Parts: sequence; C-alpha cells; structure tokens
Amino acid sequence: MKSVGINGYGTIGKRVADAVSAQDDMKIVGVTKRSPDYEARTAVEKGYDLYISAPERESSFEEAGIKVTGTADELFEKLDIVVDCTPEGIGAKNKEGTYEKLGLKAIFQGGEKHDQIGLSFNSFSNYKDAIGKDYARVVSCNTTGLCRTLNPINDLCGIKKVRAVMVRRGADPSQVKKGPINAIVPNPPTVPSHHGPDVQTVMYDLNITTMALLVPTTLMHQHNLMVELESSVSVDDIKEKLNETPRVLLLKAKEGLGSTAEFMEYAKELGRSRNDLFEIGVWEESLNIVDGELYYMQAIHQESDVVPENVDAIRAMLEIEDDPSKSIEKTNKSMGIL
Amino acid sequence: MKSVGINGYGTIGKRVADAVSAQDDMKIVGVTKRSPDYEARTAVEKGYDLYISAPERESSFEEAGIKVTGTADELFEKLDIVVDCTPEGIGAKNKEGTYEKLGLKAIFQGGEKHDQIGLSFNSFSNYKDAIGKDYARVVSCNTTGLCRTLNPINDLCGIKKVRAVMVRRGADPSQVKKGPINAIVPNPPTVPSHHGPDVQTVMYDLNITTMALLVPTTLMHQHNLMVELESSVSVDDIKEKLNETPRVLLLKAKEGLGSTAEFMEYAKELGRSRNDLFEIGVWEESLNIVDGELYYMQAIHQESDVVPENVDAIRAMLEIEDDPSKSIEKTNKSMGIL
Amino acid sequence: MKSVGINGYGTIGKRVADAVSAQDDMKIVGVTKRSPDYEARTAVEKGYDLYISAPERESSFEEAGIKVTGTADELFEKLDIVVDCTPEGIGAKNKEGTYEKLGLKAIFQGGEKHDQIGLSFNSFSNYKDAIGKDYARVVSCNTTGLCRTLNPINDLCGIKKVRAVMVRRGADPSQVKKGPINAIVPNPPTVPSHHGPDVQTVMYDLNITTMALLVPTTLMHQHNLMVELESSVSVDDIKEKLNETPRVLLLKAKEGLGSTAEFMEYAKELGRSRNDLFEIGVWEESLNIVDGELYYMQAIHQESDVVPENVDAIRAMLEIEDDPSKSIEKTNKSMGIL
Amino acid sequence: MKSVGINGYGTIGKRVADAVSAQDDMKIVGVTKRSPDYEARTAVEKGYDLYISAPERESSFEEAGIKVTGTADELFEKLDIVVDCTPEGIGAKNKEGTYEKLGLKAIFQGGEKHDQIGLSFNSFSNYKDAIGKDYARVVSCNTTGLCRTLNPINDLCGIKKVRAVMVRRGADPSQVKKGPINAIVPNPPTVPSHHGPDVQTVMYDLNITTMALLVPTTLMHQHNLMVELESSVSVDDIKEKLNETPRVLLLKAKEGLGSTAEFMEYAKELGRSRNDLFEIGVWEESLNIVDGELYYMQAIHQESDVVPENVDAIRAMLEIEDDPSKSIEKTNKSMGIL
Repeated sequence: MKSVGINGYGTIGKRVADAVSAQDDMKIVGVTKRSPDYEARTAVEKGYDLYISAPERESSFEEAGIKVTGTADELFEKLDIVVDCTPEGIGAKNKEGTYEKLGLKAIFQGGEKHDQIGLSFNSFSNYKDAIGKDYARVVSCNTTGLCRTLNPINDLCGIKKVRAVMVRRGADPSQVKKGPINAIVPNPPTVPSHHGPDVQTVMYDLNITTMALLVPTTLMHQHNLMVELESSVSVDDIKEKLNETPRVLLLKAKEGLGSTAEFMEYAKELGRSRNDLFEIGVWEESLNIVDGELYYMQAIHQESDVVPENVDAIRAMLEIEDDPSKSIEKTNKSMGIL
Repeated sequence: MKSVGINGYGTIGKRVADAVSAQDDMKIVGVTKRSPDYEARTAVEKGYDLYISAPERESSFEEAGIKVTGTADELFEKLDIVVDCTPEGIGAKNKEGTYEKLGLKAIFQGGEKHDQIGLSFNSFSNYKDAIGKDYARVVSCNTTGLCRTLNPINDLCGIKKVRAVMVRRGADPSQVKKGPINAIVPNPPTVPSHHGPDVQTVMYDLNITTMALLVPTTLMHQHNLMVELESSVSVDDIKEKLNETPRVLLLKAKEGLGSTAEFMEYAKELGRSRNDLFEIGVWEESLNIVDGELYYMQAIHQESDVVPENVDAIRAMLEIEDDPSKSIEKTNKSMGIL
Repeated sequence: MKSVGINGYGTIGKRVADAVSAQDDMKIVGVTKRSPDYEARTAVEKGYDLYISAPERESSFEEAGIKVTGTADELFEKLDIVVDCTPEGIGAKNKEGTYEKLGLKAIFQGGEKHDQIGLSFNSFSNYKDAIGKDYARVVSCNTTGLCRTLNPINDLCGIKKVRAVMVRRGADPSQVKKGPINAIVPNPPTVPSHHGPDVQTVMYDLNITTMALLVPTTLMHQHNLMVELESSVSVDDIKEKLNETPRVLLLKAKEGLGSTAEFMEYAKELGRSRNDLFEIGVWEESLNIVDGELYYMQAIHQESDVVPENVDAIRAMLEIEDDPSKSIEKTNKSMGIL
Repeated sequence: MKSVGINGYGTIGKRVADAVSAQDDMKIVGVTKRSPDYEARTAVEKGYDLYISAPERESSFEEAGIKVTGTADELFEKLDIVVDCTPEGIGAKNKEGTYEKLGLKAIFQGGEKHDQIGLSFNSFSNYKDAIGKDYARVVSCNTTGLCRTLNPINDLCGIKKVRAVMVRRGADPSQVKKGPINAIVPNPPTVPSHHGPDVQTVMYDLNITTMALLVPTTLMHQHNLMVELESSVSVDDIKEKLNETPRVLLLKAKEGLGSTAEFMEYAKELGRSRNDLFEIGVWEESLNIVDGELYYMQAIHQESDVVPENVDAIRAMLEIEDDPSKSIEKTNKSMGIL
C-alpha cells in the first residue's frame, strides 16, 4: 500500500482523494487545506486526516470545529508521493521550494507549465515515459480530452493533421465570481491557442492546430474536431474503435443526450459520485468522414476527466505497474468507469 | 411490502423510484416511459421493470434494444398505489380517465391543480389528513420549501403574516430548450402569485402573500421571507428550532456556501445520489429579527425536495404508519437525509 | 421613389423598415403586424402606417389604442416590392399563396429554404444574378457573415477549402422563452451542418464544411474559420484587404474589444440605432497564417447584419442600380455603416 | 454655460458626458481616461477633449493614435464642477486628495460611502438640500430606482413601512469577467441589506427594510416592493400618480413587455442612445393593494437611471436652478425622457 497525500483538497484534489481511496494498492494518508470551509469540514467527516498548509491559521479551524491533524510539512514526511492540486502556478513553486528539497515525488495538474515540471503525462499517450520518474504533470482537462479520442484514431488509421475548436465553459459550477454571464470570449484571441502544443507534450509527433473560446456555461467543455486521416477507414470503423476504447463513450443525441447538460444528467443516472463523467462523451451522430477527413464533436467534464489519469500516474511513477493497459483497467474497474 | 408503481419516469419519477426502493415497507413494481431515451435505458439497467404508456411505440423500444415488460395498464393492475409523475396537467386526466375507474390509489405532483385532486399533502403540515385517502397531491417544490421552514416557526412562536418573494430557476438542468438566457421575468407578472394560496392548501390558516419571478439559472429556487411573528423570540431560538427540524439545513455563507451553486456542491460532498439536496438550505447569516419580524433566505432543490414527501404520502394513504414523525424519520434514515 | 412594404414588423422587419426609410430612392408605404404589442405601438409612434395580417383581430388593436390603416392585402396593392420578414416557413407559404397571385415582387429571409424561393442573395457574392428577378432570399445572418469575409479573401488569393465552426447564440435578447440556460448544444448534432451548402447558394463554387452549436448567450454569433489559401499572401495583406472591405471591421481585443459583449458595447459608442452592428467584426489578433492556412475569428450581430443586404436586394430586383458596389456604397452611407 | 468635466469616462461617465452635452446651460470641457481603449478612441471621435489621469501612460495613447489634450490636473483647472465617475472607492480619495485642495465642486456616484461625501442626492427626494453645496453623491442605481417610485407614493398617501427584495444583475453587459454564470447569490447574505439605509440618506424618514441578491443576468435590476400605506387609496389612484410622475413608466406585460429583456428592447424602439432606459419601468399588472399594502415590481437600468440625476445635481450645486421640478423638466426634455 503506497502512501499518497493530496496537497490542495479542492475541485480536483477531492476527487483524486476519493479515486485513490478506491484502489487496493495505494491509500490517502492526508489532505491539505488552507481555509476552514465546507470542503474542509466534509473532508474530515468523510474520514480524511486534514493537514493545514498555513499553520498560522490553525485557530480558525479550531473555531470552526474542524479537526486538524497537523501541518502540510508533517504530512509530506509520511508520503511516497504527493498529488499537488493547488491553484495554477503554485504547484511549480511547491516543486522547487518544497518537494525537491524533501526528495518527494510529486504529480502536478495541467495549470502548471510543462517546462517547469519537465514531463507531461496522459495514460494512453506516454504512460511508460513516466515509469519511475520523480515529477510529472497530468495534462489539462482539455488536453486529456483531445488525447483520449485522438490516440485510438491515430492507432487505427494514422492522423495527418488535426484542427480543433474548443468551446470552453467559463467557470466551474461553484466559481460564482467568474463570468462571462452573456458573451462569447475568444480565449486566447490569438490563433493558434496553446492547446495544440500542450497535446504535443504527450503525443509528441501529432500535427495539431487549435482555437479556443469561453462561453457562459459551467458544465463541460465542448470540442469540435476535424481530423485528416492517413489511411482510409469507414465511419463504422471509427465507431467500433472508440467503442472499445476505455474512458470514451459514444452517446446518441437522438436518445435524449443532445447537449452537455444531458450528458451531465446521464452521469447522474449512472450513479456517479459527485455527478462526475470521467469519460469523454462523443456525439455518435457527429462522427462523419468527408473527403478523407473525420469530423466529430465531444464533451469534456473539466472537473473529473483527469482524475483516473492521476491514479495511473501514481502507479507509473511509483513503479507499481509497468503496463499502461493494466493500470487503466484497474483504475477503471475500481471507479466504475466505462 | 406494498407495491408501488411510477407513472412517468422523469425528473421526479426516477427519484421517487429510488427513494421507494430504499424503504423496507414498500417496493417498486415497475415504472412507465413514453420514449426509448437514455432514462428508459438506465431505468432497465438499474433493474426497474419498464412498462410503456404508449403501446403503439413498442417497436421503437425494441429497435433501441430496451427491454419492455408490458403496458402501463398491465402495471396498474399489480399496484397498491401509483405515484403519478407525468407532466403538468396529465395527472388530473389520468385520475379521471384511469385511476378512478381501476379503483387505484394515486399520488400526484404539484403541477396538478388542488381542486382536481381534492387533497394536498405536506409531511409536516397535514400528514394525518391523508391517512387512508385515495388521492393526494404532494405540493410543488416551492410550496414544500415554504412549508418546511414555516411549520416549525409557526410551532415555535406563531405567525401573524408571511411575505415571500420567490426567485425561481428558469428551467431544470437538462431542459435545454427553456429560457430565459439573459432576463428577469416576473412570473406571474400579477401579484400575489399562486404560491400563497397553494401553501394554504396544507397550512390551512396561514396568512401569506407571495411574489414570484424567473431568472436564468437551473440549479435551485431561492426564497426571501419576511415573517411577522406572534410572540417574541430571539434569532437563536429560531436557529435552534430550525436546527432540530428534519429536512432543513442551516448553512453558512462564510464557510463557502454563499450561493445556490455552492449548496449544490455541498450536496456533492455529502455523496448524495444524483447530487440531490432533499433538505431546504437556509442561509444562517440571513436569519434576523427586526421589529418583531423574522427575515431569512432559503434555497430549494426543485428536482428533489418533494421526493421524501412522496414516500411519506404513500405511508399515510396506505395506512402503513399513522404517526407523521415516525414516517419522516424512517424516510430520512433510509435516504440519508439530515 | 419605389414603394416598399414590410410583411412582419419584428426583429428583422423593423430594422429593414428603418433602413429603407434612410434611402432616397425608396420608401416604406406600410408595415404589417399580427398582435397589438409594443412593437406595433412604437411602429405607429414612429410614423409607419400599420396594416394587420389577421383582419379579425382589428378590435384588439382598437382596444389597445393602436391605429390601424388597413389589412395586409390592402398594403400589398400599393407596393413595388414586399420584404417578407415573417417567421421561418411562413414566407414560402406567402410566396405561393399571395405574392405570386398578385404578381408582387418579394424578398425573403434566411429562414426560408433556398429551393422554395429559387434564388439566394448576398450583396458581395451574387448581386448581379438578382437584377430584375421577382423573388430572392437574403441568406441567413450566419451565411451573410461567412460571405462578408470569405468573398474578399477569395478575391485576394483564392480559397482551396474552408472549415468553419459556428458558435451560435441560443436566442435573440427578447426571446425569453428560449434556452439553453446552461449547456452547449451541438445544433445540428450531425456534421457537416447546413451552413456550408447555404453559403454555396451564393458563392457557387466554394469548398466549405461547417459545424454548428448553440450556447447560452443572446448577443452575437461567433465563427471560427480555417481557410486553406490558393496563393501565398501575408497576414498584413489579409488585414489590408479586410480593412478596405465595406461591412467588415477589424477590431482589437487589446483595445478592450475582447468579446461579443464588448463588440455590442462598441456599437453603442458608435451611436448606432438599436445598438446594431451591421458590420462583421473580425478579431484582428486572431488573424494568422500557418502552413498556407488562414485562421480567424469573427462575430455576427444576428439581428442586423442582413439589413443592408435587404436594401441592396431591393435595388437589384427593382433594377434601380446595376452596379453592386454603387448600391453597397449608397446603403452604407445612408445607414452610417463603416 | 457652466464648465463640466468627467473624471472617468466609463459606463456612467460617458453617459453623463452625453447628457450634459444635451443641455444649454452647461457643457463638457473634457473627460479623463486611464487606458487607450475603444472608449477613449470613440470619446475623441465624438469630439470630447481627452485628458489622461495617469500622465506616465501618455505614450501608450500616442501609440494607439488617440489624441490627448492634457492631464487630468490640467482639466480640473478649467472646470466649475467635476462629475467623478471613477470606480468605487476612488472618488472619496479624489475628494480628499484633489478636489478639496483645488476648491473644486464635485459630484460622486453611489459606489462612494455617504459618510465620506457628507450629502447624498436624488432629484425627487432632496434636490433643495444640494443647492450651492460643494460635494454631493448621487445615490446608486438601485436606491435611485426605489426613490423614483416611493417618493410619489409617499406624496400621494403616505408610507408606513416598505419591504423590498432586490434581484440584481450580476454584471454590466461588458463586464465579461464577472459572474455568476449559473447561481443565485444572496448579496449580502445578511439581512437587512445596505440599500434601506441608503434610501434613508435622501428620504430621511422612510421606514424601509431590504434584502438583496445577485442573479446571472446583465440587463437590469428587478425590485419587488411591498409598501404598507398610511391612507386608503385605490390601485387606479396609484397608477394615475405614477403615470404623471416623470422618469417612471408603467409598462404592460400583456403588450409583450413581460421581462427586463423586453424593457431593453422597448428602449431600442424608443430610439434611445446606447439603448438606455433612464426611466424606472413598473409592471402595470403587478400593481395591487391587499389589506392596505401596495405590491409592485419594477426594473432598473443600472447603467443609465442615475444619469439625469447627475445633470440635476449639477444645476443644484452650481445654483443654476432652485426649483427641482424645473430642472427635472429641462433635463428630461433635452434627453427625450418620458
């Protein structure tokens, strides 16, 4: 049983904590939190030991009646690996300021820059490159979503060139201060966006150009893909390939699943914890091949799709499992992923 | 074990089905559906026998590979009671056209008119009036929310007059065709709204006037209450009373629960099925008494707050339990309600 | 002075009425309306003669104190041409049932099907094909937006292939019943969408494939374009070409115009009637050429971009002006279009 | 002709500039701006002399090709009065740090605190108290909206007590970074909100308690009012009184004006600059009296309702006009206000 800690029990951190807890080869030793909010309270109620990253705030936890086990530094000493889920930019500072000094292996999230971590990770793209490594960054929710479907398509028939337009949710559901309320925002307004190069940190040779924007919704990102193929296949070949690919779901608009909102409702019907959809949802009706180019639309649950990838990264970096497909299968089975 | 059927496995119906299944004194015999959509498919996957309300559509279910057990009429013959969760206005037609002819007891939802059903129901307001009755209507999500907090306040210190402004969500999360996208809509534009009289169908003597509007959100309704009290109490007395009232939660904005979105996030942390918040959430900071008048704000999860009330109504109408508090406690325990 | 009537004084109709009124070679003889609403009232207050399309409703206009000049049929007799701005699908019925019988020339909007009208129109693409014709359909706001920028690019350097992803507003600002409130909706969920073929009704030989979706905003559509070019040009060549193209504006995100909301705010600063932006706004920062492919993002004000095109179509069909650039210039000058 | 300057040419500042320019007894000498954005550019294009508040940034204006006339300090020397429209909190600093030292009269906006300015202002409530004064604060859009309808009602029949629930827009249309996207946010979560006391800074003896929240819309605030009356009147008396009150409009939901979005559309039909609705719109259908208590709903255009009040405040403070009704009438006539 490997000992794992979560630094930053927020949107991603709390999900990774639960996912690790569902495994039989690793366990959560503790999680860190800065503020005595409802997430801190429910973390303790769920049985996680809570460590505080700002020790001077201990009294505020006491006042709130939330039990603190120790400081973040005390937690780090007990770990085989830490999963850093702190806000964008903090992770890289923690790497240099803390983890490297402690000799502690660490996984970072997609908000950190590839160059500052040195290695990026996606279970289907480059699992083996992470085996035994000290630091890795699980690529962002959008990049993970692109890899999940582009990898199997590349395996099936080769990819000449990808064009993708990524319609991103403006904020997560509980980020009530973020907009836009009523606007479409090119983000970035320059083309190409950084998402293409980010895919290339894990799918090294892929030719991909991306454009990105923000829209007033909180549920999921939506991607529009145009993929020039190297060899000739049929739409049915693609469907079959995606159907057999784990962490990808083909969903039918005509069965009532015609929007990101209905995908989220479907996750409720599947009985998923926190209403998460760890899989990438591909609209089956959107799959089409015109003049050797594959078109499709997919939806990405930004809060959860990277969670199983974090579990796999732990296995690779701690050398628990060398075979990516075995780790993926084990993670999926434990989390109920299709 | 009493035999219960759900007519209309949609937003409310599927939740009532799961709630009934969690009881040890009643069971789901089957659920009905009109279209072979993802809700029908997942109903069967979860183990519910599916009956179709439009027999001529059987072939469409077959084509979709969704197993049909029989017709709605066949289901009705097997039941002690049916919970009708069909769209607004259909329930009353079913009562006259079907249930009365079959001599089948039936529970209806708040979309039906009180006069057409004859008896309205809320677990805390008039449970005993429903004992042994053939037909009852569980009042709407908004009315249920008002009763949940006004009943204990009335018990504690008497209510002279209630004024309430109800800021309603424009559509449920998966109703993607409904707006508004960017507007505030007085609904109705006339004052008072129908919600006051609807409360009076279960709290018979309450003096209440309401105003209602729609806003562009899908998560929860929000209520603003101004309650003139009969006898003098302190804010702490009110807090204590609400704290001990089941199906009501006092939540703190300062703990990060400052909006309906964060209430929904809290339900995720509680591990609730479908991310439901069966309880009415009252903002603790909003509770204040000025000049003998109590002010507070509360949030109502329109998709789920009436679900435990449906279970209680079954117990009352089938004479399984005569004591409201025992039914409420039993329902709560089985559903994990606080 | 040619006599023009508007059948359907709604979102498009009222704007075309004002645009025609601003010309010196045509005038509005009257406008039609079905209901005595605020648009009918303000039409009369602005000086338009109001004709009613449902004569049986005359009393309802009387009760509302809105002066009616006559019936739609009486209006049609006074016209050289009618601009039909009725809801989608009604126009084609009016053509067959009314205008053809009267021998009345008519312009239709993009909601009608090309095949039912026979000729589609865009000022920059095929003005000359409409000269003297009896019926023409001004292509939809989205198609007009695509033509506005693709035409000059095609003129400059030739286009091999266009891929476009169109992020559409869910509803117009005043359509408060339409959603989605919080979802991204592939619309249609099949690829390619109908927009590509619609462009081809006016740019006959263009190779174009489109994907389309709906998002929860009311202000503008946003388009993401990927254009493979025939001959080599620089980004500056493209900017210069678009800059000199009428009805196209290059706007800078860095000057505070980073979203559709800010484009609309810019229209306010320009002093535009009804806050309209008749021009297509292209984000200057988004213009880039990678591997011979031009990328850019643009925004389309769905309520108004087709309005000057309607004026030009009147000139072509009534043979007032044979030279497209002269009509465009005249329309622009009178309407203050840049 | 009195000389007026605008410090802060943003949402409010640019509107006040245009309103002052429409008067014959005052003129705009110049406006200030910090950044060379589209508002700066269009200010110059409209003929306003532009002064920069951060002189070190002059080169950035030069690079953008936007003509700068001088620094803010140079502008202040030329003025009889400055209208400070800087962001919340900056105005009070400007008062102490700049205007008092220069002996320059100044008007502030509702974001400043009453205590720091000393006098608050509403044209209908306390115009005379501002005559000849050096500093005054035009109360916020919400408070202005409350005063506009409560003043005439108080005049007609006396007010015992007001309860108001204020459903506020989350952000202005062009504030694309502000949320919420999908939530209702009690703001503040404590009751009563600060709006009641703010009304009392201009309606000194009014008994009023308020609750406030934010919702995901950009167009207008919406208010729900419950007003206990001192003497008995009919609903028709109230309608007649509001009808004859300037800067208040009774609008009918049944004429298609059933939401804030449709009120904004109505402003477009009125041909208003920037689509502004300077008047408070009251839903006629909502007016009702039950048990001596008046209920109604109104909508407030947060970007513009305080603009005519700023013009009136200039007249009072510079002693151009001592009679409030004459200033109001003059302002209204020049701005086309009903």
